[in-house]
Amino acid sequence: MSNTIIKAYGATAATEDLKPLDIQRRAVGTTDVKIDIRYCGVCHSDIHTARNDWKGSTYPVVPGHEIIGRVVEVGTDVQSHKVGDLVGVGCMVDSCETCASCEQDLEQFCEKGATFTYNSPDAHIEGAQTYGGYSTAVVVDKKFVLRIPENLDAAAAAPLLCAGVTTWSPLTHWKVKKGDKVGVIGLGGLGHMGVKFANALGAHVVMITTSPEKGKDAKRLGAHEVMVSKDQNDMKKHQGSFDFILNTIPVGHEMDPYLGLLKIDATMVLVGAVEPLKPFHGGSVIMGRKRIAGSLIGGIKETQEMLDFCGKHNITSDIELIAMQDINTAFERITSNDVKYRFVIDMKSLK
Amino acid sequence: MSNTIIKAYGATAATEDLKPLDIQRRAVGTTDVKIDIRYCGVCHSDIHTARNDWKGSTYPVVPGHEIIGRVVEVGTDVQSHKVGDLVGVGCMVDSCETCASCEQDLEQFCEKGATFTYNSPDAHIEGAQTYGGYSTAVVVDKKFVLRIPENLDAAAAAPLLCAGVTTWSPLTHWKVKKGDKVGVIGLGGLGHMGVKFANALGAHVVMITTSPEKGKDAKRLGAHEVMVSKDQNDMKKHQGSFDFILNTIPVGHEMDPYLGLLKIDATMVLVGAVEPLKPFHGGSVIMGRKRIAGSLIGGIKETQEMLDFCGKHNITSDIELIAMQDINTAFERITSNDVKYRFVIDMKSLK
Repeated sequence: MSNTIIKAYGATAATEDLKPLDIQRRAVGTTDVKIDIRYCGVCHSDIHTARNDWKGSTYPVVPGHEIIGRVVEVGTDVQSHKVGDLVGVGCMVDSCETCASCEQDLEQFCEKGATFTYNSPDAHIEGAQTYGGYSTAVVVDKKFVLRIPENLDAAAAAPLLCAGVTTWSPLTHWKVKKGDKVGVIGLGGLGHMGVKFANALGAHVVMITTSPEKGKDAKRLGAHEVMVSKDQNDMKKHQGSFDFILNTIPVGHEMDPYLGLLKIDATMVLVGAVEPLKPFHGGSVIMGRKRIAGSLIGGIKETQEMLDFCGKHNITSDIELIAMQDINTAFERITSNDVKYRFVIDMKSLK
Repeated sequence: MSNTIIKAYGATAATEDLKPLDIQRRAVGTTDVKIDIRYCGVCHSDIHTARNDWKGSTYPVVPGHEIIGRVVEVGTDVQSHKVGDLVGVGCMVDSCETCASCEQDLEQFCEKGATFTYNSPDAHIEGAQTYGGYSTAVVVDKKFVLRIPENLDAAAAAPLLCAGVTTWSPLTHWKVKKGDKVGVIGLGGLGHMGVKFANALGAHVVMITTSPEKGKDAKRLGAHEVMVSKDQNDMKKHQGSFDFILNTIPVGHEMDPYLGLLKIDATMVLVGAVEPLKPFHGGSVIMGRKRIAGSLIGGIKETQEMLDFCGKHNITSDIELIAMQDINTAFERITSNDVKYRFVIDMKSLK
């Protein structure tokens, strides 16, 4: 068996638009699942990697880690998935599976380094990089293939694989429960999923935004209240009242005002800002024994739990379906925050 | 019964040296304990308040919240303490005792505001401020009077009331246990107690310092290892290895290097820097799901638990005993970090 050549879209340099490329996929090994890609969500990380914002990009970059498709072939040792199944692939496609992190189902923190779905050294093809879901097919080890509940809209389920688990993981890790007052800061791809999940977990959800005009949509998505962080009366009214805050702001920002919203012993989790924050005052955590924590995507086990929860509660992302050929416009629109709330590529357009 | 006039030392303005003052103490009420003060520790907060560094100082300021003395009189409703007992008073002398924080034994976060031992509105004398332990006697509600184990050196026990509980509280709240690798950053009044407690709790204690010359003393105090944070090899060697870090640095500082020392899911607690920290990188907590938390002194219940633990393990502070008249020199020496590790005033000098 040999590698196959398939169609993809990728960047050949940081300053180049994405364009059609031919890439190779490995032959299906004994524990592999081959997936015919139907949909792929567009994550802000795709843009950062294509443009080398975080450095470390190796070109060509074929982004995409919110992959939904149908199984078309399985290896001889695969019982967990069968041809025809609706499946997903998220941010990771391999890990060592033996280190302390992997044994705790935290493959994202694999001590040997998880293999991410794109722009990682490929564990199966010598010298190659992984290529993501902006392509017609992918071959992935069964352990990293998720089952997608058939009742979900397949296209709208795509963003669950990254934006979904990124917000689900901290909400459940920090045990958000019925009746908790939960703030979600920022209403983008991550924030809108945070609002949906926090609502479904039974919390009293407060959308915290700088843009009052987002209020109506936030309530449609599941927020019980909207507070405007620029409004000092709003900030004062909610002072010291939150059990948990999910902070999805994607750039560096002031944290003291948000820390002031937390109750004693409460936590604010950062999931968006992979860059320097603005200085915060030590007193903002010392007074009230508060916590700032981070969270990175989620492990495979919790991703499946999240998908099963979504199946049961019929939760998907709010999306705008685009053709593969529209990707460069989509990147521009994401950069200018003009999407409600996630672009998903209809991969029919590439076939 | 009327108030009594006693001798004290205090500041009458931010720019003035401390000097002898006469202050009043209330008559012993039904639930009060009158204490003949034998020793009082000198905390950096005393200096900040005397000098109005944190604003909000009302003059005269009589500092001192590490008070050790003997009971000389008790109210009719006091069974918990009797004349002759060795007792202590820490940072607080009153709280509402009914709010959610007080009910959880977290009087330091009393929703109505705890009454601190000095520079707080006095709950018993209309229009007066509380005056601290730089004085010959104090009258305190029984709930805020701690029992000091008689086997401890009374002078060296004084700093347990603030420096002790400030470091004890986060170590126990975050459940530091036998075998944990615990870092203590900074070897001052707080840090040296952190090292002693972490050792006594069975942790593998690593003193983290910028000053290699502090290493010998750190080991004497209970550190198993010393690492120099300016040494890149040291920092690399200990990367991602700590279960818990107690950060006692009293001023704003870079946090990313220290966050890099934490294991996955591990916590660094700030107890010293009540001022703006330098910006940290969101990735420092997002990668590894790490946590930055704060901690403020401790509640009365845990202060008593700490004192009982100290009695059992014979733990006190390393101190330099001074006369009340030497306080201004002591302030200067603390400011230039020239004390090992806490000044304690021998109150005989004031009598």
